[in-house]
Amino acid sequence: MVAGEFMKYLKERILQDGKIFPGEVLKVSSFLNHQIDNDLLDQIGNHVSNLFANEKITKIMTIEASGIAIACYVARYLRTPVLFAKKEKTSNVSDNVYSAQVVSYTHKKTSTIVVDKEFLTKDDKVLLVDDFLARGEALRGLISLIDQAQATLVGCAIAIEKGYQGGGDQLRAQGVRVESLAIIDSMTADSITFRE
Amino acid sequence: MVAGEFMKYLKERILQDGKIFPGEVLKVSSFLNHQIDNDLLDQIGNHVSNLFANEKITKIMTIEASGIAIACYVARYLRTPVLFAKKEKTSNVSDNVYSAQVVSYTHKKTSTIVVDKEFLTKDDKVLLVDDFLARGEALRGLISLIDQAQATLVGCAIAIEKGYQGGGDQLRAQGVRVESLAIIDSMTADSITFRE
Repeated sequence: MVAGEFMKYLKERILQDGKIFPGEVLKVSSFLNHQIDNDLLDQIGNHVSNLFANEKITKIMTIEASGIAIACYVARYLRTPVLFAKKEKTSNVSDNVYSAQVVSYTHKKTSTIVVDKEFLTKDDKVLLVDDFLARGEALRGLISLIDQAQATLVGCAIAIEKGYQGGGDQLRAQGVRVESLAIIDSMTADSITFRE
Repeated sequence: MVAGEFMKYLKERILQDGKIFPGEVLKVSSFLNHQIDNDLLDQIGNHVSNLFANEKITKIMTIEASGIAIACYVARYLRTPVLFAKKEKTSNVSDNVYSAQVVSYTHKKTSTIVVDKEFLTKDDKVLLVDDFLARGEALRGLISLIDQAQATLVGCAIAIEKGYQGGGDQLRAQGVRVESLAIIDSMTADSITFRE
């Protein structure tokens, strides 16, 4: 599928299979982050890799658990390693990791995310990948890890951005390249409006 | 790489990059479950898919987080969806999920794992995939979910089995097809012996 067609197809899938719950929660667990549609994810991987093909990316980073699948499908096309930040139960972390705090508004809790210092260095050119972007907390945590390692952030690739929560536009205003395949500008109990 | 060569290569990678910690803990976080080596995982996906090519598998199942990557690389070759069981913080789960208890000896805790009933049905022929197999707790939890859904278990594909912890052989004795790409029969502070 060419890019335009694919973006249209993804939006159709969100409309068709997504379920809206109170509190502006959109569940796409039938194809994106519980059950994973192999063909769709392969298309996402292909599309994202085309967007960043010229960037000499050395590593794709995400956070466990729901970002891992997309990261792997992108890695297949860019032929780079994936590094997923782990969520720690405590904020007591060892000396050999970079760590950051991430607030999840959906799950109403704060996690400490960590990556082993050995796997993220100043020579890395990193593409961040995730399934959702809302307030941008997860991306900001990952960017902090990249900064601590003095690595280079190339950009962020997101499957579904909740545009109305502002995280994506805030990062763009700071000069971060954020590519979201579908941006939701508003959502009610029975409708979804995408950004053109 | 043909199968024999690949199995040999995987063992070499484990010897070269694996780190042994007290308590018979083997860390392979440089290529398998923190940082992910795209080329290696692609080979694993290819190899596992060949083993189960004639089984008409409809779904690949694993548990978050470290099984997701392997599951996705296998799914690419078998062209099936992936379903990853989620770990819940509480044992209070809703009516629309199948659930099971899984003890992690490594992390010294019990988790409740769940899958949405909608995504696992009696028509499914399921391949279980995971990065590690030790006492078999995770696989038994996943098999319980499959049984609850009256789905069919085709077999299990594992990257690294700790043979000396007995989980794999116990499942084999019960008639479950368990295919492990590398089986460790013993491990000391500075050596690893693989099963022939």
